[in-house]
Amino acid sequence: MKRAWALGCDMGGTNIRCAAVSLDGDVLMMRRGPSLAWRAARAVADNIAEQVNTLLADAKAGGLGAPRAIGVAVPGPLNVFSGTVMAAPHVAAWRSFPLRARLEAKIGRRVIVENDANAWACGEFWRGSARGRRDVVLLTLGTGVGGGLIVGGKLVHGRSGMAAELGHVTVEPDGMPCDCGSHGCLEAYASTSGLRGLVERRLGLARRAPLKSEMLDVEGNFSVRAMTTLARRHDRLALEIFALAGRYLGIAIASFLNVFNPELVVIGGGMAGALSYMRKTMMAEVRERAFTAVAREARIVRAALGPRGGVVGAAYVALNPPSKPPQSGR
Amino acid sequence: MKRAWALGCDMGGTNIRCAAVSLDGDVLMMRRGPSLAWRAARAVADNIAEQVNTLLADAKAGGLGAPRAIGVAVPGPLNVFSGTVMAAPHVAAWRSFPLRARLEAKIGRRVIVENDANAWACGEFWRGSARGRRDVVLLTLGTGVGGGLIVGGKLVHGRSGMAAELGHVTVEPDGMPCDCGSHGCLEAYASTSGLRGLVERRLGLARRAPLKSEMLDVEGNFSVRAMTTLARRHDRLALEIFALAGRYLGIAIASFLNVFNPELVVIGGGMAGALSYMRKTMMAEVRERAFTAVAREARIVRAALGPRGGVVGAAYVALNPPSKPPQSGR
Repeated sequence: MKRAWALGCDMGGTNIRCAAVSLDGDVLMMRRGPSLAWRAARAVADNIAEQVNTLLADAKAGGLGAPRAIGVAVPGPLNVFSGTVMAAPHVAAWRSFPLRARLEAKIGRRVIVENDANAWACGEFWRGSARGRRDVVLLTLGTGVGGGLIVGGKLVHGRSGMAAELGHVTVEPDGMPCDCGSHGCLEAYASTSGLRGLVERRLGLARRAPLKSEMLDVEGNFSVRAMTTLARRHDRLALEIFALAGRYLGIAIASFLNVFNPELVVIGGGMAGALSYMRKTMMAEVRERAFTAVAREARIVRAALGPRGGVVGAAYVALNPPSKPPQSGR
Repeated sequence: MKRAWALGCDMGGTNIRCAAVSLDGDVLMMRRGPSLAWRAARAVADNIAEQVNTLLADAKAGGLGAPRAIGVAVPGPLNVFSGTVMAAPHVAAWRSFPLRARLEAKIGRRVIVENDANAWACGEFWRGSARGRRDVVLLTLGTGVGGGLIVGGKLVHGRSGMAAELGHVTVEPDGMPCDCGSHGCLEAYASTSGLRGLVERRLGLARRAPLKSEMLDVEGNFSVRAMTTLARRHDRLALEIFALAGRYLGIAIASFLNVFNPELVVIGGGMAGALSYMRKTMMAEVRERAFTAVAREARIVRAALGPRGGVVGAAYVALNPPSKPPQSGR
């Protein structure tokens, strides 16, 4: 029996996940492939298209038929209306790259492209922690800090779909350098990259200097998971660094509470696993800075969906595409 | 001939304005009276009701008949759905005060209450600088800093109508004390109250110590207008203080650009008159901290409506009341 479905594709720095998602948000079929993000701009896009096409073929072979819609989530600020990626942290070659046009040419169907953090937020809104809520602030603490905003039950896009870059609010004017080129952004404190910077500063090391092996993963990269293990073993440095990250996370969350008066703040991403080591300093800032009545109405919770959140969200975005606002004159 | 209209009432710390506003936003009739904000909680509300009732009588006598709707804008965070004022900077006696219930009892008609900054934002959206725009951030720099947010063409209320407290985002974690009880808020730098604090700190004076007469108005109060006059005369201290306020205004605006990707940032209130002395440092921060593509899409402009903005906005709010969201369970 054929079942209506949408294709959700989520591209990360290392892997691409493609899934067939039912209209209720159930994952019916999923496959994973490499991102090949180091390739040339078009080759990276063509690799996405190839993996989408493979899933389309698999779905056909599996009796699912054609999807209702196709959504592709990619990192970096992008214009959801034109389908152009401005810049992507993991894809060096994408600078003002017309991703949607290229994907549609290679797939032969309409494609919706969306920022990965926005798609993830939609996944949590559809099937995760934010289900049934109307006003939600979502933060994903990964390599960088991504954000998604649900206001009045709708994803906020802004003028061209670049809204909700919540990792790039200033939390310390003369603060740590951020990968975005500015400094003192939330991302410079509450992401893998930010945490590494804090460790380096604390130890008086040069940027990207070698770190102790206990802070690294098996491939030798700085690892939030390794830092979390250290914190669990009462390592003073790890606890201090997470406390500092928690302070800045709390400063940003307090501002978001005063700005959005949300019901819920959802925190996901790899660093959400260390929330218990950040919570004390985070909540101290929230209590000090957010209006009491506003803070009382909002819960701060962890994301509910695992790695499937991205593909579920991309499918949601495909089924609920952004409506192009009328372009007002200048 | 009878003309359809709405009643807009705007209560400030000193005066109340009540106006009959046409469905196109034209002010047909306006009157002004004292706020008497130092009175007891109910007496302050009854004074508003009395002035509304007087305008209703005047309108009837003038042949306008009954209004379509009545909107009352008051300072301070309030729950627009329940009509309760949490706290109001100028009305000491209002603490969790059920304003709407009291007004409706005294006026005998349905009343919409709204935060004054939100109402002002609606005025600019309806008839001012933000006319026809869909994504707008509005800041009013007065005694404090008020905010309004238009997202996708709609005023953002959040869970209970306390959203858009844009003056209370943190711009300097260990910064100046703010009237809200926290510290380092935008309001602690870019409002009359914040500016006074900066002057006191710069001169090494105690809080609320006497200031030079050239910084005061005729009643002896610290005056942004007097400071603006000093700046126009190249007074070094005044220029330095406005440059500092501009820096923090720019830091906040950069964050708002990254969060909302708006078409427009509208700046109003008494301190908007000093924008030319703040613009250089403000724009330096915006250029440094906001994503280029986002900053390029947003203009930063002054509010277009004068003191009538509040009553026009209150009438708009009355004609477009917030819809109560379905209360989700916890």
